[in-house]
Amino acid sequence: MDYGIKTWGNDNFFIEDGKVKVNTGCEPSLMEIIQEIRKDGIRGPILLRFPHLIQKQIRMIYKSFADARKEFSYEGSFNAVYPLKVNQFPNFVKNLVSLGEKYNYGLEAGSKAELLLAMAYNNPNAPITVNGFKDNEMISLGFISAEMGHNITLTIEGLNELESIISIAKDRFGCVPNIGLRIRLHSSGIGIWAKSGGINSKFGLTSTELLEAVNMIRDANLLDKFTMIHFHIGSQITDIAPLKKALREAGNIYAELCRMGATNLKAINLGGGLAVEYSQHKTTLHKNYSLSEYANDVVYLLKDIANRKNVSEPDIFIESGRFVAAHHAVLVAPVLELFSQEYTDQKLHLKENNPPLVQELFDLFNTMNRKNALEFLHDSIDHMESLLTLFDLGYIDLQDRSNTEILVNLIIKKAVGLIADKKLSEILDIQDRVQERYLVNFSLFQSLPDFWGIEQTFPVMPLDRLDETPTRSASLWDITCDSDGEIGFNTETPLFLHDVDIKNRDYFLGFFLVGAYQEVLGMKHNLFTHPTEATIIIDDDSFEIKNILESQSISDILEDLDYDIREVQENLNERIEASDIISEKEKKYILGEIYLFLNDNGYLKTINSNNEGTNNA
Amino acid sequence: MDYGIKTWGNDNFFIEDGKVKVNTGCEPSLMEIIQEIRKDGIRGPILLRFPHLIQKQIRMIYKSFADARKEFSYEGSFNAVYPLKVNQFPNFVKNLVSLGEKYNYGLEAGSKAELLLAMAYNNPNAPITVNGFKDNEMISLGFISAEMGHNITLTIEGLNELESIISIAKDRFGCVPNIGLRIRLHSSGIGIWAKSGGINSKFGLTSTELLEAVNMIRDANLLDKFTMIHFHIGSQITDIAPLKKALREAGNIYAELCRMGATNLKAINLGGGLAVEYSQHKTTLHKNYSLSEYANDVVYLLKDIANRKNVSEPDIFIESGRFVAAHHAVLVAPVLELFSQEYTDQKLHLKENNPPLVQELFDLFNTMNRKNALEFLHDSIDHMESLLTLFDLGYIDLQDRSNTEILVNLIIKKAVGLIADKKLSEILDIQDRVQERYLVNFSLFQSLPDFWGIEQTFPVMPLDRLDETPTRSASLWDITCDSDGEIGFNTETPLFLHDVDIKNRDYFLGFFLVGAYQEVLGMKHNLFTHPTEATIIIDDDSFEIKNILESQSISDILEDLDYDIREVQENLNERIEASDIISEKEKKYILGEIYLFLNDNGYLKTINSNNEGTNNA
Repeated sequence: MDYGIKTWGNDNFFIEDGKVKVNTGCEPSLMEIIQEIRKDGIRGPILLRFPHLIQKQIRMIYKSFADARKEFSYEGSFNAVYPLKVNQFPNFVKNLVSLGEKYNYGLEAGSKAELLLAMAYNNPNAPITVNGFKDNEMISLGFISAEMGHNITLTIEGLNELESIISIAKDRFGCVPNIGLRIRLHSSGIGIWAKSGGINSKFGLTSTELLEAVNMIRDANLLDKFTMIHFHIGSQITDIAPLKKALREAGNIYAELCRMGATNLKAINLGGGLAVEYSQHKTTLHKNYSLSEYANDVVYLLKDIANRKNVSEPDIFIESGRFVAAHHAVLVAPVLELFSQEYTDQKLHLKENNPPLVQELFDLFNTMNRKNALEFLHDSIDHMESLLTLFDLGYIDLQDRSNTEILVNLIIKKAVGLIADKKLSEILDIQDRVQERYLVNFSLFQSLPDFWGIEQTFPVMPLDRLDETPTRSASLWDITCDSDGEIGFNTETPLFLHDVDIKNRDYFLGFFLVGAYQEVLGMKHNLFTHPTEATIIIDDDSFEIKNILESQSISDILEDLDYDIREVQENLNERIEASDIISEKEKKYILGEIYLFLNDNGYLKTINSNNEGTNNA
Repeated sequence: MDYGIKTWGNDNFFIEDGKVKVNTGCEPSLMEIIQEIRKDGIRGPILLRFPHLIQKQIRMIYKSFADARKEFSYEGSFNAVYPLKVNQFPNFVKNLVSLGEKYNYGLEAGSKAELLLAMAYNNPNAPITVNGFKDNEMISLGFISAEMGHNITLTIEGLNELESIISIAKDRFGCVPNIGLRIRLHSSGIGIWAKSGGINSKFGLTSTELLEAVNMIRDANLLDKFTMIHFHIGSQITDIAPLKKALREAGNIYAELCRMGATNLKAINLGGGLAVEYSQHKTTLHKNYSLSEYANDVVYLLKDIANRKNVSEPDIFIESGRFVAAHHAVLVAPVLELFSQEYTDQKLHLKENNPPLVQELFDLFNTMNRKNALEFLHDSIDHMESLLTLFDLGYIDLQDRSNTEILVNLIIKKAVGLIADKKLSEILDIQDRVQERYLVNFSLFQSLPDFWGIEQTFPVMPLDRLDETPTRSASLWDITCDSDGEIGFNTETPLFLHDVDIKNRDYFLGFFLVGAYQEVLGMKHNLFTHPTEATIIIDDDSFEIKNILESQSISDILEDLDYDIREVQENLNERIEASDIISEKEKKYILGEIYLFLNDNGYLKTINSNNEGTNNA
């Protein structure tokens, strides 16, 4: 069982000696890394960042386009910017900027906060692009960037923004940022009225508005600043065909605008959309193309249109963020507990006289064989439903109900054994009913918001025991109080995990490809916040753990909500002091405990009641 | 057009003089309140909190159950706790606690952070319940609560937690919190294998585990602490029938446990689930019962089972949060701009010789009448698709494409006028195609996360002009760079807004019922954070604006991400100083600008390029 690591893993990880290892340098296992971090007492979910995987993605992008440009003797240049919205966290962004320096890799901003980040951290001379709706203030920030010497292009989303640029250009110091026009394509999405990318999409100028825009730019004597057109057909493009259609349309618009006198227009910005393969199952692949196919298609199509329309081959810009960021981060979360639905027959307490249906369940269990297994299984589930109804109506008691649960469970288990070699669909159907629930120390809302929001799946696998066959059909529960905080067992994309005695040994799950969007979209449900993070630098001899940032303390979380933390503490202290249940000495002890709780993070910590075994949280 | 205010409004708001007014005290309009807040220069989205609406919901709950208990001469008590996860923000929670004092209204916690809040702010003697998965530390906090004198019940989600309680009870000071057992129902959801609430649900003990738990409690001599059973069939129960089934099941379990010797078991906790009517359209109601029906059903069914099984009538606990919190908050967001897809024929620049299909569009437009309108409309859309393809293939130019857009638009507009009295479905179909895009100064991800995540709709309406018929089929865009940041026009639940000249007058939209879950689930997409908030106290003579909390400054946002804000500022300053494009004086000016930007919030501000008109953001 390799958990599809060859499908989604991008050769970043491999399995050896039953462990997931990092495919670089001294090839440490993720277990080693986690155990090293936990040595200092850190518990709970931990987000690992691997800068070498940022570097790899950046290099792949530039290399693929360099190869394509060479193959087709393409004359336009290739440029890339990283859209900050995908991940704005400093331990990612600062690494990205420094690793991208030699490529002149730039940044894209979609809000004032992101633009200020880009202005502060972007490599000198590397491009900055600014997308999204802009107020006068954001446009002024764009002018400031240009005045600071940044190579910045403001993408216009509506004519109003262009009016603002023209007006602000008159008031400032003579240095105007480059202007890009976002074009509204008809060709992407399904049908011209489709929401994403199509004619009804949120962004972009219609042909009529493009003509108006060029006239406005000409009238304002800013034609030399109009350098780029921009389009974006959506995040995570799973199919290359719509991109090709969009490129043809955009290429024609580019050529038309050049012919209409846009003398300095020289670039087409394709936006983002380069997909990541998130699937663990070959049957449910998320994309149907490779990076080099993408690069070749882009270069070939743009060259073809430029040549046919007799305009110069445009410079190419891309704004792929997911592709660059997703791989670099792995969330490791400890399994806290297994909630088994299984019972041994020792728990069965049949009475002298059982209700007839309970007796019948018992007979089904005893007489079940390979031939009648499925039929008896279905009968037993029918009986269970009847018995549960009898309970609700007061006809059977709690012991009868318990016996029912146990017998049905034993029947399912027996059935699984009897028909283990039958066809998969039937076995999966049964597996679905004997799921093991793995309680995992993380918040799905905080760490995998796209699973909740858009049903995006992420590869998940245990970090060790990979030389043992996992036997339990698993559903994963997070620690929030929300029934949506669950990754249910799915017969289409089944997850099997090991049967572990969590009191005696640790069992960690890795959630992969979580570096894009998941951090900034993280929700504070039940006040669980960003997990502890660490950056892992791996060289040929060893690995180094850097920039450990522990998950926020409860004090900090409450302060973020705008509680006055001194008030919280005083309230607690006063109530403790006022208690007439405990002694003065006990009060002192409790005050100390409260102080520690407020200064610790909110994730779960110690689970084993016996306080022996490991601290598995 | 009353935007369904009588359906969802709970009599909290009414329309008078074309404005939405608050139905209490001096009845201020929401416009007045917003204008008062904006007097101090505050812009962007503003969340208004109305404590009188918290009070109203609490009162309604207690009154409905008091009435039901009286009607059925019910002997058990009624108790309620507010689950903090629904909204943990201090300006809500502190009001709630103080307004709930006279009812002995308590708090529910689902994490350590929430439990510390409950311990600090709960009314003395009011109940605290603790749900969700608990580590030893959280259980110790439960003991501390009891030692402080809180009336606390820990709800056990698994036998492991019970083991911890028993073990910790031995180590501490003799004061043990009450124990509740979460029961796993089979009856809720659809079919016994259903995820939510049913046998496969995330939470609760099976019958067999219940029997084990009671034995464990008895063996530990803690039977006097086992006081409650708990169930929860899901948030926002839209239909009362599953609740009735669940009550019957839970009632029987309660009676069985009492008969088995749970001598101090006296309460059933129904969890939350009391629904809120979010729908603006009578055709899509979200619930089929009233609060008094809910209260009557609960009281009647529990009485009936207790009497039939000859046990005492249980005390009732409920944990409804959505019902209490949703109404109190209204998000008001300014419309920034209208992106019209409409063009007048002035923009049309037909050539001497047009491509045949363009000419045909022109003819369709001229010869269209009431009879052929729909047919011509469909023809024109066909032609447009063909023409767009011709453009992609290089056969027509950008001017032809623009003419196509304009002609199809004129045809749609003419068709709408011609068949305005025809049946709604056809008109809506066309309205769908001439949507006006309203750019609204808010982030859907931050302020309406449930719209993104679970397609939860919220009532939305303009705050004024309600005496004018709104004519434009509206889709709402937020200011993020994400194409999901849109509330599209939906022919099932159409939204019509006014045709406003936003340069000359303000137009605000109110999003109602956003007080539950939306704040804490808010995502920082593009680094837009919690909007500015204000608490509005209304009495008979005037209203007062309290606790204004401005949306975070960009500096604060970056610090929350763990940027070193001094480093950000120094980087910016150095790059400005190093610029050889601008003068020293200009540099000083820019340094000041940057400082202001860093200390302002990230929402949009000034949109009008002419700097006349209003500051409509």
